[in-house]
Amino acid sequence: MPTTFSIKRTVQFSETDMAGIMHFANFFRMMEEVEHAYFRSLGLSVCMEYHGEHIGWPRVAANCEYLGPVRFEDELELRLTALRVGEKSFSYEVEFLLGEKRVALGTTTSVCCSVAGGKMKSIPIPAAMREKLSASLKVGTE
Amino acid sequence: MPTTFSIKRTVQFSETDMAGIMHFANFFRMMEEVEHAYFRSLGLSVCMEYHGEHIGWPRVAANCEYLGPVRFEDELELRLTALRVGEKSFSYEVEFLLGEKRVALGTTTSVCCSVAGGKMKSIPIPAAMREKLSASLKVGTE
Amino acid sequence: MPTTFSIKRTVQFSETDMAGIMHFANFFRMMEEVEHAYFRSLGLSVCMEYHGEHIGWPRVAANCEYLGPVRFEDELELRLTALRVGEKSFSYEVEFLLGEKRVALGTTTSVCCSVAGGKMKSIPIPAAMREKLSASLKVGTE
Amino acid sequence: MPTTFSIKRTVQFSETDMAGIMHFANFFRMMEEVEHAYFRSLGLSVCMEYHGEHIGWPRVAANCEYLGPVRFEDELELRLTALRVGEKSFSYEVEFLLGEKRVALGTTTSVCCSVAGGKMKSIPIPAAMREKLSASLKVGTE
Repeated sequence: MPTTFSIKRTVQFSETDMAGIMHFANFFRMMEEVEHAYFRSLGLSVCMEYHGEHIGWPRVAANCEYLGPVRFEDELELRLTALRVGEKSFSYEVEFLLGEKRVALGTTTSVCCSVAGGKMKSIPIPAAMREKLSASLKVGTE
Repeated sequence: MPTTFSIKRTVQFSETDMAGIMHFANFFRMMEEVEHAYFRSLGLSVCMEYHGEHIGWPRVAANCEYLGPVRFEDELELRLTALRVGEKSFSYEVEFLLGEKRVALGTTTSVCCSVAGGKMKSIPIPAAMREKLSASLKVGTE
Repeated sequence: MPTTFSIKRTVQFSETDMAGIMHFANFFRMMEEVEHAYFRSLGLSVCMEYHGEHIGWPRVAANCEYLGPVRFEDELELRLTALRVGEKSFSYEVEFLLGEKRVALGTTTSVCCSVAGGKMKSIPIPAAMREKLSASLKVGTE
Repeated sequence: MPTTFSIKRTVQFSETDMAGIMHFANFFRMMEEVEHAYFRSLGLSVCMEYHGEHIGWPRVAANCEYLGPVRFEDELELRLTALRVGEKSFSYEVEFLLGEKRVALGTTTSVCCSVAGGKMKSIPIPAAMREKLSASLKVGTE
């Protein structure tokens, strides 16, 4: 079973829309929040210097299935599962749980890039970052 | 060839993030903007009364592939292609164009629901709405 | 000294803009977050039924002074001070602290309304709500 | 009478909240949109190079009064009036009009800064920019 990492997150008023539920685009912001908390839990940041280079992680793909409504003041559990650490990319899945009920399921893929002068260039994930991300995956699969 | 419908949309400062590009979640807001403009172009709204019922269109799925960076003050063309009008659902694709270059491609599926007392129940797309949505599709496929 | 109530809040990536700092509009979302947490701490919600009426609190005024930059992964303290409980309105101030440094200061005023059929009408704050909001203020002023 | 500059702006679904009206923080995003369109109308950008320096305009203050509800698909007129071009700062007011009715009124003050290495330092508004901003004001006051 792969590693999971989870945080609790209360749905805010500004995240709802006139249908009375959380707006569908905000699930993507939450996917990012748990991802960044996961990086911090490994001593990493999605925005860090590495050997003098600035490293960023732009997305190449994101998707979400919506299985039930989520409302103001709902306390969600956002459960991240790392799916794959590739040479240059990193994929994970986020399950949105309201109590025991799965209300949404998203996945996203980001590519490791060096950022300089406003330009981004994909690079192999630096060894020290890869080790942490992969160790985390391996713990889960044993 | 299916019908397409497009709008122009300038990327706003508040839509960028610290990486200097449009935040990935905002592509989903833009997909919704062109969808709603498309509904209006057919004399419909995603939020309307129909025979005394309030009709809404919650999403069941959304995804996006990101093919290149989009920046502040870029003028995007958002080109919607209706993919399918099902019994209860409606799917479309949105191509994000920056000049001639495709910078992103998204799809989303919404389900027609009657909304009452904060509850949503899926229903067959009302005939008059289906006719407009399908006519639009048919024009494209002939 | 008036009552204060505070929460911790980490600045998210999606809240930054291309200038590398938190976008100025997001301070208003955070002011609302601490306000709603404060209501919950009193056993209230900004969205509740009261004697069969739905009560809402639309804003009539909001302002913010920005005293220093706030960045991704900064952990802010949002410190709410209730300023005034009027007959129909409620005002508070939010101080944004980064460590010991005040980085922003906002105030907002909301009006108590009954909400029905999409219409809002200002009403006196219901006695049970007023008591909680005022008790909270009084504790602070003694 | 001072210069005014205005744009039309349709309220989007994602800008509403569960109260069925535009969320109060989104008025600040709109104030910024008309400001940036105004800069473009003068041949300027809020994000530009000037004599090799990168110029930015962080806010020091923003406020808004809300005078009536604004809803999905409302077509607003955002009318900017330049209030003051100081040595280092620029203030303007935005009136939100729905038909003839004023539904909100906001003001904001930004400071001209040189931006380098993630640091911002306030500077006198460059002469060429000041000339355009002031000329625009003068036309209005004659």
